[in-house]
Amino acid sequence: MSDLDLSSSAISLPDTPAAPVAGTGGSAQATARDAVRALRSSQIREVANAGFGVADVLPFWFGESDRVTPAFIREAATGALARGETFYTHNLGIAPLREALARYVSDLHGATPIESVAVTSAGVNALMLAAQLVVGAGDRVVAVTPLWPNLVEIPKILGASVETVALGYGERGWTLDLEGLLKALTPDTKLLMINSPNNPTGWVMTRDEQRAVLAHCRRHGIWIVADEVYERLYYGAAGERTAPSFLDLASRDERLICVNSFSKAWLMTGWRLGWMVAPRALMDDLGKLVEYNTSCAPSFVQQAGVVAVEQGEAFTRSLVADLRVSRDHLAAALAGLPGVDVKVPHGAMYLFFKLEGAQQSLDLCKALVREAGLGLAPGSAFGSRGEGFVRWCYACDPARLDAGVERLSRYLASR
Amino acid sequence: MSDLDLSSSAISLPDTPAAPVAGTGGSAQATARDAVRALRSSQIREVANAGFGVADVLPFWFGESDRVTPAFIREAATGALARGETFYTHNLGIAPLREALARYVSDLHGATPIESVAVTSAGVNALMLAAQLVVGAGDRVVAVTPLWPNLVEIPKILGASVETVALGYGERGWTLDLEGLLKALTPDTKLLMINSPNNPTGWVMTRDEQRAVLAHCRRHGIWIVADEVYERLYYGAAGERTAPSFLDLASRDERLICVNSFSKAWLMTGWRLGWMVAPRALMDDLGKLVEYNTSCAPSFVQQAGVVAVEQGEAFTRSLVADLRVSRDHLAAALAGLPGVDVKVPHGAMYLFFKLEGAQQSLDLCKALVREAGLGLAPGSAFGSRGEGFVRWCYACDPARLDAGVERLSRYLASR
Repeated sequence: MSDLDLSSSAISLPDTPAAPVAGTGGSAQATARDAVRALRSSQIREVANAGFGVADVLPFWFGESDRVTPAFIREAATGALARGETFYTHNLGIAPLREALARYVSDLHGATPIESVAVTSAGVNALMLAAQLVVGAGDRVVAVTPLWPNLVEIPKILGASVETVALGYGERGWTLDLEGLLKALTPDTKLLMINSPNNPTGWVMTRDEQRAVLAHCRRHGIWIVADEVYERLYYGAAGERTAPSFLDLASRDERLICVNSFSKAWLMTGWRLGWMVAPRALMDDLGKLVEYNTSCAPSFVQQAGVVAVEQGEAFTRSLVADLRVSRDHLAAALAGLPGVDVKVPHGAMYLFFKLEGAQQSLDLCKALVREAGLGLAPGSAFGSRGEGFVRWCYACDPARLDAGVERLSRYLASR
Repeated sequence: MSDLDLSSSAISLPDTPAAPVAGTGGSAQATARDAVRALRSSQIREVANAGFGVADVLPFWFGESDRVTPAFIREAATGALARGETFYTHNLGIAPLREALARYVSDLHGATPIESVAVTSAGVNALMLAAQLVVGAGDRVVAVTPLWPNLVEIPKILGASVETVALGYGERGWTLDLEGLLKALTPDTKLLMINSPNNPTGWVMTRDEQRAVLAHCRRHGIWIVADEVYERLYYGAAGERTAPSFLDLASRDERLICVNSFSKAWLMTGWRLGWMVAPRALMDDLGKLVEYNTSCAPSFVQQAGVVAVEQGEAFTRSLVADLRVSRDHLAAALAGLPGVDVKVPHGAMYLFFKLEGAQQSLDLCKALVREAGLGLAPGSAFGSRGEGFVRWCYACDPARLDAGVERLSRYLASR
C-alpha cells in the first residue's frame, strides 16, 4: 500500500575490496532478470526526487494520513513487547487475531469462520500471496485501471500476463464499462484483480456490478482477488459502514480471495499488517506460502491488530467522518480553480482530478513540486488511463489542504 | 526462519451464508495451482500435531531460542512507537539502519557501501526477494542438502526447478563433496542457493570451498544466494567473530546476494527483520520487488534493528558463548546414550544426530512426542538426505537439555 519511496540519494562509496578469487566478476552483467527489470518503478518517487533540495514542499502524493496511529493501538504493541512476546507465531496468524478478524468480517459481511481468515505481513503481502496461490507463468490476468500499480505488476513477477480494462470518465465521474470487463474476462482467464473503493480514482463498484462479475467468473472458473483495503473509507448513506464487498455475495469457499489491511481504517501504514479471507481449501497451501515469504507477521504487531479490531470501531467511524469533511473541503476549493475538473467520489481518500495541461502529468507534477512546492501524484503513475489527471490525498486537516490549494492556484495563475 | 507452525486445531464453524448469485460456486475446484500444492509442508508441524493433547512436552523442534529478545532492543521499538514512528518507510529501509548495517558488514567482511545493503521483512523474505530477482519459470537452481526446506521450495514458487547435492556424513561429521557440487553447477544453472552455517546440520563451509565455488560460478555466470543467517553462531578459534562468508571473497558488485537476519544473533525471531547485501546494479529492481512484496519492514521494528546492530555486540558474544556451552553439554550427554551417533559441528544451534531406529524419522519423532513428551524435528523434514537423523535445537539452558536427554534415554531403554 506504500507509494512512499523516497531515494536515500547520493551517498559516497568506500572502495570495495579487490576480489582475491580467480575469474571475472562480470559486474556489468549482474542485473536482475528481464521480467523484473520491466516492472514499473514509482513515478511518485520520480516526482519526489525532482523536488529534492526544494526546502518547502507540501506533500499530498502518498497514500497515507499525516496522523500517527492511535495511542491505544501503539500501547497494545508496547504491552506485548514488555510481556516478552517476541517469538515466531503460527504462519496464518495468532489465534486471537484470526478470531477477532473472523468476528469483524462476519459482522460486516456475513458469517465467516476463523478458518477462512489468515493474517499477512501487510495488505500488499496478501496480494502477493493471493497471486502466488493461483497464478503462474503464462497465466492470463485482468485488472481494471486506473489502478495502484501493485495489482498490475505483482502477477508479472510470477510470469503471468496482465490485460487492463479502463474505467470510463464523464459527468458521473469514474464508471465501470461492465460489458467491456465481462468481454475481457475470457474463459481462459485465470484471475481478475479488482480494487474497490479504488486507488487512485475513489471509484466504488456497485452491488449489481459485483453480482454480474461474480456470476460471470463462476461460470468460467475465474478467480477474483478483491483488494478491499479502502472498504471502510466509504461515504455512503448514513449508517452504511462499508462499501459493497464481494464477501456480501459470495460463499466463503468459492474462487474469491478478499484482501484487506490495517493501514487505512486504523492508520497503521507503517505496521505492515493485513489479512485475507480465502477458501478453507486454500489454507494449508497458504500456510506454506506464508512460511516461504515472511513466515509470519511480528507477534507484537499482531497483538496491536487484535486491539485495533476489537476496540477501534469508534475511532474508525470518527476517522471516516473527518475524511468526508476533508474530501468535501478540498473538492469545493479545487472546483473554484480554472482548468480543474473534479468529481467527488464515494470512496478511498483521494481526489483524482483532471487538470488542464496535465496531458503529461509526470512533467506537470515535477514542475509543481519544483516551482510551487506542491507534491501531487501524476495520473500516469496509475497506468495510461490515468494520464491527464493528478491524485491528491486529502487525509489531513482542511487548513493544510487550503495551503496546498493556494499553491496550486498561484501556479495555475502564473503559467 | 520459522519452522514453528502449530495448527490452531479444530474450531467449530458457523454456517456460511447461502450465495445469492447465479452460477455454481464450484468450491470443490477452489484449490491452489499445482506448483503450490506440490510444495512441501512442514514435517515439524506434523510432529507437533501428533503431540496435540500431550500435556507435558519439552519442545526442541523449533529453530528458536527460548529466551526473550533483550530488553534494550525491545525498548528501542517502544520508544519509536511512543515518538509516533508509524509511517511507511523507504522500500530499502530507513537510512540509519542501512548505515548501521553497512558499518557492521564492513567491520566483519570488508568495505560495504550503504547502497549495497537493503532491509527486508525477515531473512526468509530476503531469500524470496533474492529468488524473485534472478530466477523465473524454467530456470535451474542447485541447493546443498540436508537443508532448511525454504531454500529448496522458494524457487519452485517462481517456476524454477531445483536440483539438490547431498553433503557427506562420516567420522568428521558433515562434509561437502566439492567435486560433486561443481559438477552439478552446469553452465546452464542460474542460481546456487547455499546455507552455511547450515540448518540443520551445523556444517560450516570452509574458506577454500567458498573460493572454489565462487571461481566456478564466476566462470559460468551463476548467481550465488548465500544464506548466512547463522554466521555469528560460529564456534571457531578464540577471537573469530563469524563463520567464513562469501562476502570475504567477493566484490560487492558481482553475482552474489548474501542474506542475513536479526533472528539468531539478537534473538529477534518474532520481529521478522532481515537484510541482504547485493550488487548496487540490483537495488532499483529490488526496491520495486520490496514494494510489491511487503513495501517495507515496520518502521519501529527497523529502529529496534538499529539499536541491535549498534549496541548489541556484547550481547551477541555472550549469547554465542552460552550456546557453545549448551552445544557441548548436549553433545556429551547424547554421546552417552546407546544407538546415538553425534558429531559436534562448528556452527548454528542444532545437533543433527544419527539415531538407531530413526530410518523413518517422522514416525520416530511422532512416537517420541506422544510416548516420551520429547519434541525433536525429524531429519526427513530437511530432505531425503536427512533421513535417519533427528534435529535438536540446543538454544536453551543446560538443565532443560538434561530433562530432554533423560526423556530420550528412558524412551530408548523402553523400546
